[in-house]
Amino acid sequence: MMLNQTHDPARLSWVDTANDTATDFPLQNLPYGVFRPGPVATPRLGVAIGTSILDLAAAAHVGLLPEIATAACRQSSLNELMALGAPAWSALRARLSELLGADTCPAGPLRARVESCLTPLARAVMLLPAQIGDYTDFYASIFHATNVGTMLRPDSPLLPNYKWVPVGYHGRSSSIVVSGTAVRRPNGQTKPADLPAPVFGPCKNLDYELELAAFVGPGNPPGTAVPVAHAGQNIFGVVLLNDWSARDLQTWEYQPLGPFLAKNFASTISPWVVTLEALAPFRCPAFARPADDPAPLPHLTDAADQKCGGLDLTLEVWLATAAMRAAGTAPVRLTRGNFQTMYWTLAQLLAHHASNGCNLRPGDLLGSGTVSGPAKDSRGCLLELTWRGTEPLTLPNGEVRKFLADGDEVILRGYAERPGARRLGLGECRGLVLPAVTTEVSYNK
Amino acid sequence: MMLNQTHDPARLSWVDTANDTATDFPLQNLPYGVFRPGPVATPRLGVAIGTSILDLAAAAHVGLLPEIATAACRQSSLNELMALGAPAWSALRARLSELLGADTCPAGPLRARVESCLTPLARAVMLLPAQIGDYTDFYASIFHATNVGTMLRPDSPLLPNYKWVPVGYHGRSSSIVVSGTAVRRPNGQTKPADLPAPVFGPCKNLDYELELAAFVGPGNPPGTAVPVAHAGQNIFGVVLLNDWSARDLQTWEYQPLGPFLAKNFASTISPWVVTLEALAPFRCPAFARPADDPAPLPHLTDAADQKCGGLDLTLEVWLATAAMRAAGTAPVRLTRGNFQTMYWTLAQLLAHHASNGCNLRPGDLLGSGTVSGPAKDSRGCLLELTWRGTEPLTLPNGEVRKFLADGDEVILRGYAERPGARRLGLGECRGLVLPAVTTEVSYNK
Repeated sequence: MMLNQTHDPARLSWVDTANDTATDFPLQNLPYGVFRPGPVATPRLGVAIGTSILDLAAAAHVGLLPEIATAACRQSSLNELMALGAPAWSALRARLSELLGADTCPAGPLRARVESCLTPLARAVMLLPAQIGDYTDFYASIFHATNVGTMLRPDSPLLPNYKWVPVGYHGRSSSIVVSGTAVRRPNGQTKPADLPAPVFGPCKNLDYELELAAFVGPGNPPGTAVPVAHAGQNIFGVVLLNDWSARDLQTWEYQPLGPFLAKNFASTISPWVVTLEALAPFRCPAFARPADDPAPLPHLTDAADQKCGGLDLTLEVWLATAAMRAAGTAPVRLTRGNFQTMYWTLAQLLAHHASNGCNLRPGDLLGSGTVSGPAKDSRGCLLELTWRGTEPLTLPNGEVRKFLADGDEVILRGYAERPGARRLGLGECRGLVLPAVTTEVSYNK
Repeated sequence: MMLNQTHDPARLSWVDTANDTATDFPLQNLPYGVFRPGPVATPRLGVAIGTSILDLAAAAHVGLLPEIATAACRQSSLNELMALGAPAWSALRARLSELLGADTCPAGPLRARVESCLTPLARAVMLLPAQIGDYTDFYASIFHATNVGTMLRPDSPLLPNYKWVPVGYHGRSSSIVVSGTAVRRPNGQTKPADLPAPVFGPCKNLDYELELAAFVGPGNPPGTAVPVAHAGQNIFGVVLLNDWSARDLQTWEYQPLGPFLAKNFASTISPWVVTLEALAPFRCPAFARPADDPAPLPHLTDAADQKCGGLDLTLEVWLATAAMRAAGTAPVRLTRGNFQTMYWTLAQLLAHHASNGCNLRPGDLLGSGTVSGPAKDSRGCLLELTWRGTEPLTLPNGEVRKFLADGDEVILRGYAERPGARRLGLGECRGLVLPAVTTEVSYNK
């Protein structure tokens, strides 16, 4: 993807808060989301700029947007915009950059019209950005797969297919929630090693998973494939994803058909979809496979994807316990990793998904799988960080965690920064753990 | 569920074809579907009666339907009707039975109004009956699980969780198609035992799976469970499901996270949703677990479900090859099984699914998993019937099958018949196998 004026790091916005060096939402980002301006207002599309939102429904109403994207910008979810494809996305981004740029939109009647479409981000209620038809979760970090595999099979951590197949499975769409939604600890069956039979009750080993997730653009008709060289253009943008996991349920249930109730009680995503075009300055080579790893098969290979299919994106996990919040202590960082370390590129994941003719639809969500890097402090879940609970974490306030406790809030953050580019971020993906519903409440009615 | 006048086997319809003893759609059935009366007409709801459809949009328009269901009957999918719940379903069924009964709707002005809402089934284009938000597939036949397990692990066919957990996994919603949609043979990665590396190309071991699938009714909010005693009322009705499977892709990809591309290229369902209320005369005890099998845990146990949570429903697979069609030969039956043999009831599947707080939504689809019985001729897929291809089937015309060939049409049928009840059926679930798209066509563009 070529860089253009929308990426120019020197450009400022006339929305002052977008020029704050620490903001996730400078003029160069322009992420899309769905919001209500107030608790009972109709959902509408918006673009984050500094601490404001440009209301796209309002902007479309006053004729500010390009014809090709106007109808899509009047919807209450991003699906129609996602369906339009890369040329329309680029046209809309160029226009938004022009409307919000200090240089391109000087004080005057046009700026006043744009200004009338701004609304404070802090007062908006953020919603899921799209209707997610299907949610797929991959397993694309070889460090994560190796760590988990080592716990299960010390002698052969990686299964024979791992370096050939971008392993993935279907997740649950209904329980995907937006950042800020509290998540209830699930109940479920577990089989303690010291008991003769399984028991039903609250999950004891609740975990988060740090992931990046891509929203599918136009998709593909049933029975057709998407060449890997075209797959990148079929991705609208990315969000942070916390793939909450009930490890003790998972251990007992997952053979032979994969994770099910261990995952489908909730998955949390961040509300702002950062487009791949905004991330163009942060593209990097695909993961450098060790010399003795096989090359991917031809249908997963593309020279341009190898050269710049990676993403130099820092991803972090932060934790705030109830005790920390009560004491006024700031969240503590548990992990810092980078999406560069993923074994498969986003384009390879999408091309693999469609390689059998499976139709992808606008708004489908592809999770990357837990993002773990080679270093211990870049492990993307507690299972790995505490090595199945055998190496508990001690927090700065003295609290100890093997897995998540009720009242813990998990905060995912992501950002990109490189010399010569304007820093931008993905915002936050937050979720507070609520206690399980007791079986009495659930069942005795 | 109590039997009522709508189940009375002696009652006839004034729609003559509904009184044919062989029809799947007598007065006692009244299944719901979505159809277009012609190729370009708007989709609408209908009820099958003999060889006709009662157009529910038209019936609602002329004020024939109960108030509680009128708005839902004007939609273009069954989701709203599914959301209404059992009392509304019963009220609508009672009214339809009254309107279409020869005894309750004698010749006269009312019958004339109903008759004006009939349209020939043969001219209708059937569509998917609902927008399926999430599709889950279970593995509830212990005979199927034992057969497949025996092929993989002769010494321990069933995994330790099988008799405790109704094993299931998430499937793909986007590629669920209605009966009559041709299905393209998928491409994919396989790892032939005699080659050092996997290859990409057309699936060689394409299979069908005979399943029953339940449509969820009102569902449950996130974080709440559905007690097994209430789960049956949360199921609107059932359809036939062909869970097409690419066995060679599955073998290579499915560890450790379960089937993915081996399944998600297509799943076919029959168009007419037969309600659980229509099936009330065919309820039977849940599967009688052998004495040394464990009892299900309390959250999966309900006395009424044990007594009548089963379904005495005959399910069949028929095959018509291209050569058979060319010769004018009728399809040949490959399998006849019965849903009574399933290890878990539909209510147990739903209660398990929601036991962790996973929210189910109206129109979600729960596949039973392959329905295989104890007898060889009740095995519900070719993998089992040909024992992984080692015991090929010879068809009456001399053709041999290990797995499906291009041009094969697979036809699933289901029906219920018992002394004292009117026979009724599920209609058909058909799918024709088209050749794979060659990789040249897919990738060289």
